[in-house]
Amino acid sequence: MTMDHPTFRGLDHVALLVPNTEEALEVWRDRVGLKVLSSEVVNNGAVRLTHLDLGNTHLQLVEPLQAGHPLHRWLEQHGPGLHHLCFKVDDVQQAFVDLPGQGLPTAPAPHQGTQGKRALFLSAAPTQGIQLEVTGS
Amino acid sequence: MTMDHPTFRGLDHVALLVPNTEEALEVWRDRVGLKVLSSEVVNNGAVRLTHLDLGNTHLQLVEPLQAGHPLHRWLEQHGPGLHHLCFKVDDVQQAFVDLPGQGLPTAPAPHQGTQGKRALFLSAAPTQGIQLEVTGS
Repeated sequence: MTMDHPTFRGLDHVALLVPNTEEALEVWRDRVGLKVLSSEVVNNGAVRLTHLDLGNTHLQLVEPLQAGHPLHRWLEQHGPGLHHLCFKVDDVQQAFVDLPGQGLPTAPAPHQGTQGKRALFLSAAPTQGIQLEVTGS
Repeated sequence: MTMDHPTFRGLDHVALLVPNTEEALEVWRDRVGLKVLSSEVVNNGAVRLTHLDLGNTHLQLVEPLQAGHPLHRWLEQHGPGLHHLCFKVDDVQQAFVDLPGQGLPTAPAPHQGTQGKRALFLSAAPTQGIQLEVTGS
């Protein structure tokens, strides 16, 4: 169940960007029947992150909370939608050092993820515009 | 590692729609470093489905092959991108019977999935426009 890869260890979560967590939970918790594992506001009130159980991985709902947050522009363009894939790594700081040498440049610094874990966005240009993230396992 | 759900058993794969499998493999196999598990043309030449190993689940590359395939329109609008989530189920035919009663209407019939498995698309309207699929485990 683990990946044969120098850095990535598996899919931590697949993220949906949503304009409103409560409305999204009426779909993903109440209609689809997924169990809520956690829901928290992180990054000084910037976003609400809610994790739902898919058994072998998580579905993450991402709701931007602050006016002017760049994710609002994405929502205006796309509506609710699949936003990024997040891979598990052993150590986010080590991934920050190693990934550029593997042809995967990253954001300038890690950020706060879920449940106190660190996370790091990768540049989307080298991956066909698909946004990748890594987080601690 | 299994879901507490009457029908869904976990995430079988997350799918990327791509215009060209070989170009996509230069990214996902050669740059990101994912292992290719299978690649096959299904549905009478309609699409190429390629699975890559994420350890606890798969990444599926979907390339429409036939001119006029409806997925070409999606690619024209979005470019390469995250297209759907596919949940494992014990029995696709049973899911076809059960899911509408769970508030999740489906396509009119199952279709051919990967590696000889059956699969079934759900209607996207009840899930915030996010396309779900189910397939045999």
